[in-house]
Formats: sequence, structure tokens, C-alpha cells
Amino acid sequence: MTKDTFSIGIDYGTESGRAVVIRVRDGMEAGAAIVSYADGVIDERLPGGPRLEHDWALQNPRDYLSVVEKAVPKALKAAGVRGDRVIGLGTDFTASSPMPTLRDGTPLCFLKQFRKNPHAWVKLWKHHAAQPEANRITQAGTERNEEFVRIYGGKYSSEWFFSKLLQILNESPETYAAAERFIESADWIVWQLTGAEKRSACTAAYKAMWIKGKGFPCTDFFRALDPRFENVIEEKVGEKFFRLGSCAGGLSPYWAEKTGLPAGIAVSVGNVDAHVSVPAVTVTRPGTLVMIMGTSICHILLGEDRRTVEGMCGTVEDGVVPGFWGYEAGQSAVGDIFAWFFEQGVPGATEREARRNKMALHSFLETRAAGLGPGESGLLALDWWNGNRSILVDADLTGLILGLRLNSRPEEVFRALIEATAFGTRQIIEAFEARGISVKDLAACGGLPEKNKLLMQIYADVTGREIHIAPQPLTCPALGSAMHGAVAAGRARGGYDSIFEAAERMASLKRSIYRPKPQNSAIYDGLFKEYQTLHDYFGRGSNDVMKRLKKIAQREVSCQ
Amino acid sequence: MTKDTFSIGIDYGTESGRAVVIRVRDGMEAGAAIVSYADGVIDERLPGGPRLEHDWALQNPRDYLSVVEKAVPKALKAAGVRGDRVIGLGTDFTASSPMPTLRDGTPLCFLKQFRKNPHAWVKLWKHHAAQPEANRITQAGTERNEEFVRIYGGKYSSEWFFSKLLQILNESPETYAAAERFIESADWIVWQLTGAEKRSACTAAYKAMWIKGKGFPCTDFFRALDPRFENVIEEKVGEKFFRLGSCAGGLSPYWAEKTGLPAGIAVSVGNVDAHVSVPAVTVTRPGTLVMIMGTSICHILLGEDRRTVEGMCGTVEDGVVPGFWGYEAGQSAVGDIFAWFFEQGVPGATEREARRNKMALHSFLETRAAGLGPGESGLLALDWWNGNRSILVDADLTGLILGLRLNSRPEEVFRALIEATAFGTRQIIEAFEARGISVKDLAACGGLPEKNKLLMQIYADVTGREIHIAPQPLTCPALGSAMHGAVAAGRARGGYDSIFEAAERMASLKRSIYRPKPQNSAIYDGLFKEYQTLHDYFGRGSNDVMKRLKKIAQREVSCQ
Repeated sequence: MTKDTFSIGIDYGTESGRAVVIRVRDGMEAGAAIVSYADGVIDERLPGGPRLEHDWALQNPRDYLSVVEKAVPKALKAAGVRGDRVIGLGTDFTASSPMPTLRDGTPLCFLKQFRKNPHAWVKLWKHHAAQPEANRITQAGTERNEEFVRIYGGKYSSEWFFSKLLQILNESPETYAAAERFIESADWIVWQLTGAEKRSACTAAYKAMWIKGKGFPCTDFFRALDPRFENVIEEKVGEKFFRLGSCAGGLSPYWAEKTGLPAGIAVSVGNVDAHVSVPAVTVTRPGTLVMIMGTSICHILLGEDRRTVEGMCGTVEDGVVPGFWGYEAGQSAVGDIFAWFFEQGVPGATEREARRNKMALHSFLETRAAGLGPGESGLLALDWWNGNRSILVDADLTGLILGLRLNSRPEEVFRALIEATAFGTRQIIEAFEARGISVKDLAACGGLPEKNKLLMQIYADVTGREIHIAPQPLTCPALGSAMHGAVAAGRARGGYDSIFEAAERMASLKRSIYRPKPQNSAIYDGLFKEYQTLHDYFGRGSNDVMKRLKKIAQREVSCQ
Repeated sequence: MTKDTFSIGIDYGTESGRAVVIRVRDGMEAGAAIVSYADGVIDERLPGGPRLEHDWALQNPRDYLSVVEKAVPKALKAAGVRGDRVIGLGTDFTASSPMPTLRDGTPLCFLKQFRKNPHAWVKLWKHHAAQPEANRITQAGTERNEEFVRIYGGKYSSEWFFSKLLQILNESPETYAAAERFIESADWIVWQLTGAEKRSACTAAYKAMWIKGKGFPCTDFFRALDPRFENVIEEKVGEKFFRLGSCAGGLSPYWAEKTGLPAGIAVSVGNVDAHVSVPAVTVTRPGTLVMIMGTSICHILLGEDRRTVEGMCGTVEDGVVPGFWGYEAGQSAVGDIFAWFFEQGVPGATEREARRNKMALHSFLETRAAGLGPGESGLLALDWWNGNRSILVDADLTGLILGLRLNSRPEEVFRALIEATAFGTRQIIEAFEARGISVKDLAACGGLPEKNKLLMQIYADVTGREIHIAPQPLTCPALGSAMHGAVAAGRARGGYDSIFEAAERMASLKRSIYRPKPQNSAIYDGLFKEYQTLHDYFGRGSNDVMKRLKKIAQREVSCQ
């Protein structure tokens, strides 16, 4: 064992960061540690600062640093691995989560004069207050026939880089002016670790309109959005991006000392949590849709060529693994909907019943929901509690439950919510297949698959496809990051020369799989048709009631 | 005081019966008592018998008798009134709540051989399992151009007399055959008290197709429904009905002894809880819509002439007070929706917060909801948890909540549910006004108005009309019954000769009223348009998803 080498992966999630120590020769997880962000998701009030409006979601970059400082030494200790056995380090992040910084990388929110300005903080991926800016970008891009519009399936999302930058320009021009750099948190953390601002081609291509071999839209486009925005690329972003798995630089002496790792070991360029998970579940070829299932779901599929699929988050050459087109789609809220339900919708009586049965509330309700057949509740929901990310790409859509009766019970609502999210995934699969990009089976990782067997069976039944689960579904992104760390190191330094090699040696899938039950699938086929009708009625302009209600609500709040 | 005479009113509600002792000269309530039904609403399992299907709701007639036996003596005692000061007794009931009996009035469910047969019990008004039969009746009535179809606004309800009888014939022909009489509970209790089967013209006209001066549809119609149904009127119902306020007979010696009342005092023919409330809130003329607000809402409006209003429950000459046409409309679930929400939808955390604030959960959530402005929640609901009774007249419609977001809170859902029921009332008002039957203001009684100030203000804001509240809104039907008891006795025996006289002397309204706030009404006008769009989309055939889901759910349950 003493001759073994290891790679470190750090996965930055929505609520916490996780470091894992992975054995390079076989992907064995030797140790892991999680550190929660002290400020978490900032969506109600800035720490010591003003109340935030609806749809805001910020983070504190200091929390990202403390993950490196605390989780890496803890993971090494848990693994019983000495720092000098580690040859590389990779990171992955939520995206798009940009922040404004000074030229040296100091986040504006670290400066006293900006601390109480919400626009100086990280705008987390699920910050949805830039929908007007996203609409404006889509409109301008469509009018000018910009290529990014096709790449992003027809719409630019409010969750993405330039929507968030443009919101800063609109609402806080002084923050915009003071920002010397706008940078993805994914790239910022790599900059901190290595001292070099080397940005990833992945986030640039999926979130910021950058195209391999072509670069950004020209300054005319940005001027069309706002004259002050004309030179945003040259002045505050830059045009150099590095491919996934390439080495961003060596670990700085400062961080070597803080973590106990050797200075100078390879740090790979930043990656995205979803994308990095794909090779970690062994997928390096087309045909298997990877679902990263947590608070939201991110879907990644590899394709042989470029096709325009409705409402994709992005279609990027080499965007996930080299040589293939990486298609990304997603659902803005999945685990988040269940969390909402358990917090805001499960009655006290059910809590007490679970306690009497000596069961955790979640297991209790899952058992009850599992006792129901498909369609038995008579309920149908639209899973848009946090808008719709793929197909409709509209943050202003909202959730719906239909079929409620005086005898509707919490477990029925719970099951309907699970089913709704499964229908959302099926809608995405059908969009792929409508363009001839086949989805043969599914591979799942993330926080949900291990916790919720009923959910996985419902996804298999609703999609009519087998689902393979990663052996440690929660640590897939961290494993993927460690794999990219090993690739950044290269074979010469004890790692691998390509992600294909790394995937073959370091990644695996569980033998246990979920298989669709034909009698359930048959009922779900019917229910899915109903879902589609509602999806199109409320989502494609027949009745924009959700948007109108949201507008009224915003006006009412702002009037008070 | 010793010379004062009194009248007793007994109001049979959904969960309990209430007796009041009312002073005849001025309507003062001297005493009251409530007795809960031991078996309550039987909607899950027959006492000691089989599990019931979805949409069933039964009652045990024994519970009705124990109200007389227990509540009347208690109310007299509370009033400090001797039985011999009482000159009359009136009753009112939920309707249509029919039961099968022997020729002597014995309910079939009292017989050992029928005890475990659900069809032998009272089918409570909110028993909704006879929708197929209701559809069949509407279809046959429409094809044959039967007058009742126009009287009932185009549809015969699953809640009504012949739907329920036909369900018995279809599902339990042996019960149908054994039933020598089918009778409204409203008439059955009068039969018990007087020994004479004297049925009320009110229930017959509003629920059973009977028309003053014309009688029932002919036997051809009933044969068209089912050959075995041809002679249902002659064999099991009868054709004599008595007007409201008329004397059904004297109190029998048996019940005189049980209650402490004098034998032979006037017992008025049976009345309906909603209808009897109208003169009790001083309304004996057109222009004021009376809302009886409890588990459901019943709306009653008087008109000068007969007009066809969409989806009315009924339009009956002399149906409420003599000389006017009584229009009845309603919403199948109102308080029931809130009860469902408090039982099935308010999270444990909110319960604990209410306790920390030392407030009852309902008051706590009402206070929170009252802190929101109209439209602020971004939520909109359709109030069809128990189907739609008026306008659409369809028990197979179900409830909907739209606009849900990750930050939606229980008080927002609660407010949206209240608003939805108010929109339902406005829909009914607009249907009246569309036919030129004006609604100038509203008068409210029942269980909800006193408990829930926010609800009343929202109703005023949503309808844009003033609402007057009865001084003792809960006891309106009982007061109305006592008024009818006094009319049954007549002036010669210390009562009154007409309900107009009785209303002038015995009824009153509170000075406190709810007035619409123009700024709220303006927002609600916009939200009501959204409600109407959804109402028509889901209710008028554009998308029958609710019905299809219900069918699937019923099939799934029955397959297990």
C-alpha cells in the first residue's frame, strides 16, 4: 500500500464542500470529509446586511476556502494517507456561480465598502432574479442570429453567467464598475489554489456563450445588450480557456502548508459538478443518460455530432469528455421540492405517527407512498417549484398540484411530487430522442439515488428504462474531480494521460439496477400524456397565468 | 317572562345536531345545546362493517334520534324554560340525505340483515359516488326535454335524491327491493316526531324533480333510466308534499315524554338547513344573497320570477318563502377545504410556532395570512376539493393549487384556499347577474363568519359587496326552524300566521358589516379573471384531466 499514489477531489455543492482521497490505480475511496458552508445559501438576508428580494441566492466565497483548509486535512487523516502520496488535485463546482473580484482575485464582497451590497457576492447557480436580463439576452441573440442561441436550445438561462453580470450592471453599476474580473467560482477556487487565473473551457462554453475555435460573440452583441457592456470580455473576463483535465498549475506553497499536501502537485482546471460525474459513473460514450440527482437534476448525454435539441442547457464539443459532444439538460428543483414539502407541507399528525412507528419521517412517508400504485392518488403535479430549466427554460414558471380531494393524504402528495420530477426527466429524454439522439439507459449519482429507492423505481417505471447506480452515488463528482486531478498529473507523475484511461481504471457502477415494471410503465404512459398537456398549456404560452401571478406578487411585495 | 312563549328549532348539521329555545315575541335565544353524532360522517368504514369506497359518505339515523332525546331537554334546561311554555317545534336538515326504510319508517340499516350493507344507511348530502347515475339522469332528462333540467340549471347533481336511489338500484338491487319507502332524513325525523309521513315540498322540489302544480316526471322518464325504476314514485316515494311552515302534526306522546315538551304541540314540515336560514337573517325579499357558510356554502337568492341561471341547484316557486322564486346555488366544500388543509397540509413546524406564540393554530395562521396582501403569495387555487356544485355541477372535478415555489409558506396556501372559495362565490354571483337577477349585498350565517374575520373581509373584497352578519351566525338554521315552528303553531296558538311576520319579529342582523376595500378589490378583479380562465379550462371540457385522473385512481384502487 505504501507505494500507492492518490489523487484528491474536491466537490463544491450547494450547501457544503466534500474532499475525497482516491487511490489512483483503482479508484478506491480511501477517505472523505465534508464541511458545511457557514453562510450556506444566502437567500433571505445578507449576513449582517439587508433583506434580499424573492428569487435571490448568494454565497460567501470565504466558505469555499474553508472547505480546502478543513476538509482536505480531515480527509487525508480519515484515509490514513500521507500528503506526499498525493500526486494531483481536481475540483468541481456548481455553475454558473460567478462573482466580481479585483484584478488579484479578491472578491468584492471581502471589501468593507461592498460587504453590504448583495451584488458583490457570489450569485449562486439558483439565483433566479436575472430573468429579465436572460430574456433580453435571448431576444438580442435571436435577432442577431447568434450561434449561442442554437447551442443553448433557443434560450439563454437566468442562471447563467451573462444574465447575472447584466443584472449587476443594471441594478448596481458601481459594483459593475469596481469589478476588475467576473469569474466563475469554479475558476476562482483554482486561481486561489495555484495563483494563476486559468479558466475552464467547460463553464465558458456551457454558461458563457464561448465556442471552441470561435470564442465569444463580438462586441456588437454585448453593446446591443447595453453600451456599457460592450467590452465586458476584454475588460473583465478574458479570452483564454483551458480544456478539462489540463493542468492549471501547481499547488501554491501557501495552500500546501495549509493542507499538508506537497507544493507544486498538479491542480486541474475547474470543472462542473455534473460534468465531472459522467466519467465517474463510467460513461465516456453515447447512449447512457447520466442523472446527477440532488437538490436539482442535471442530465448529461454524449453525442457523436452536434444537433439542436429543444431547450438544452448546452451542446458543447469536448464539453464533458474529449471527442464527443456533451449535451446538458436539467431540472431546477427535485430534492428541493421534496425538502420544501417536508418543511412546508407534511402535517404534524404525520410527524407524530412516524414517531409512534419509530421511523424517520422521510422513511415513514416513503413507505406509505410506496404502498400506493401509480395513479392511485388521482394527483398530478408540474415540477416547476423553481422554474423550468430544460425544454421551456423559464424561471418564471411555478409549481402546480392538481387532483386534490378532501381525502388526499400527505403520502399521496409526496408520491405525486416524485412522479412529477420523473415526468420532467422523461420530457427531456423525449426531446433527445425526437432529434435522433438515443437514450438506451440511465446512470444515476448524487444525493437522491441511495436515499430514496421508491424514487428510483418510479424513475425507471416512468422512463421505461433501466437505471444503474454509482457505488457511492454521493461522491461521484468528488471522484470525477480526483480522476481529473490524476489526468492533470499525467502518467509521468503517476496519473493517467486521458480521462478514458482514468475512467477505465478508477470508475465503476453497482451491479444493482432498477428495472421498469411493465404494468406500472403502462399507467405512467397515460399519466405522462396528461403531464405533457399541462406542461404545454402552462409552459408554451396558452395560459401564462404563472408568470402573471409572479408579476403581481412581486409588485405587491415591492409596494409594502 | 313567565307569560312568554317559546318555539324550539332543531338544526341537523353534518357532524352534529343543535337544539335552540327561542322566545316567540322577539327571537331571543333563551338556551341551546349541541349533540355530536356518535358515528359522525361515515366515509371510511361502516361501524363494524366493510371499508367504503372513495366518495362515499353515510350517516346513522340513530344519531338523529339521539339529538332530540338529548339536546332538547338540555336546551330547555339551559334556557330555564319549562316545557309547557313551548308552542311549536321546527327542524331543518342537510339535503339531499335520503335513506331506505320499511313502511313503518324503520330504516333498513336498523335491521340485522342490512346492517353491513352500506346502501341501507343514510346517504349523506356529500356522498358523491352516484356521479354516473347523475350523468345518466341529466342525459335522459335532456333527451326528453324534462322541465327539471331547466330548473336545476342544466344538470342533476350526484348529491341529489334520485342519483342516490338509482345508485342503490344499480349496486344493491336487494336493498332497493327491500326498501318500502325512500325518504329524505328531513322528512324522516318529522315522521318520527309526529307519527305521520308528511313530506316537505322544499326537499321534493329542490332535490327530487317535483314541481308545484305539476308533480314528478312521468313513469316513462323513470323507466328510461331503468325499467325497474319505472314505479319508484308510486311504490316508494308518494306524491303528497306540504308547504314550508305548515303543520306536519302534533308531537307524539312518546317524544313528548322523552323531551319534556307537551304532546300535540305543532311540528312544522321538514325544512333544509340553508333555506330555513334565509328568513332567519331577515331576508324575505330579492336583492340580498344569503350565504350559509360552513363545511360547504349554500347560496340562496330570492327572485321575482323564474329565469334559467347556469348551474343552479334549483329554482323553486315558494321554495324558500311564499310568493318568491327561491334560487339555490352552492359550493361543495369550503370549511371542509380548510379542515383538510389544517389536518393534511399544515406542517409540524407551524404547529410548534403557534404553540410558542401561545396561539391556537387556526388563529396563528389566520394572523399570518392576514399579513399578506391580495396576490402577494403568487398562488391561485381552484376550490374543487369536493367537486363543483354550482355553475359546473360536476362532482368529478378536483382541487388545484398553482404558483407553488420553494419559498411558498403555509399561510400563503391557506390564504389562497380562502381566496379560491371566495372566487367560487363570485362566479355564482356573476351567473345570477348575467341573467339580470341582481345581487346588491350579502348576508352571512353559519359556522365560518364568526370564526374567521379574514375570510369575511376577503369575500367582501373579492365580490366587491358589503356583507352583513347574523348576530348568532351559527344558530341561524335553528332559529329559522324555530320560526317555522311558530308559524306551524299559528297566531291562534301563540305563534305567527306567516314567515314574513315571524321574520319581522324574530330575526335581526348585526350592525357590524364587512365593506370591500377598493384597492384590494382591484387586485382581486385581476386574479378572478385568472380563476375564471382555469375554471373554464378544467371545468368546461377543454382539458378533462381531473376526470381522467379520478377514473384511473378508481380503477387502481379497485384492482388491488
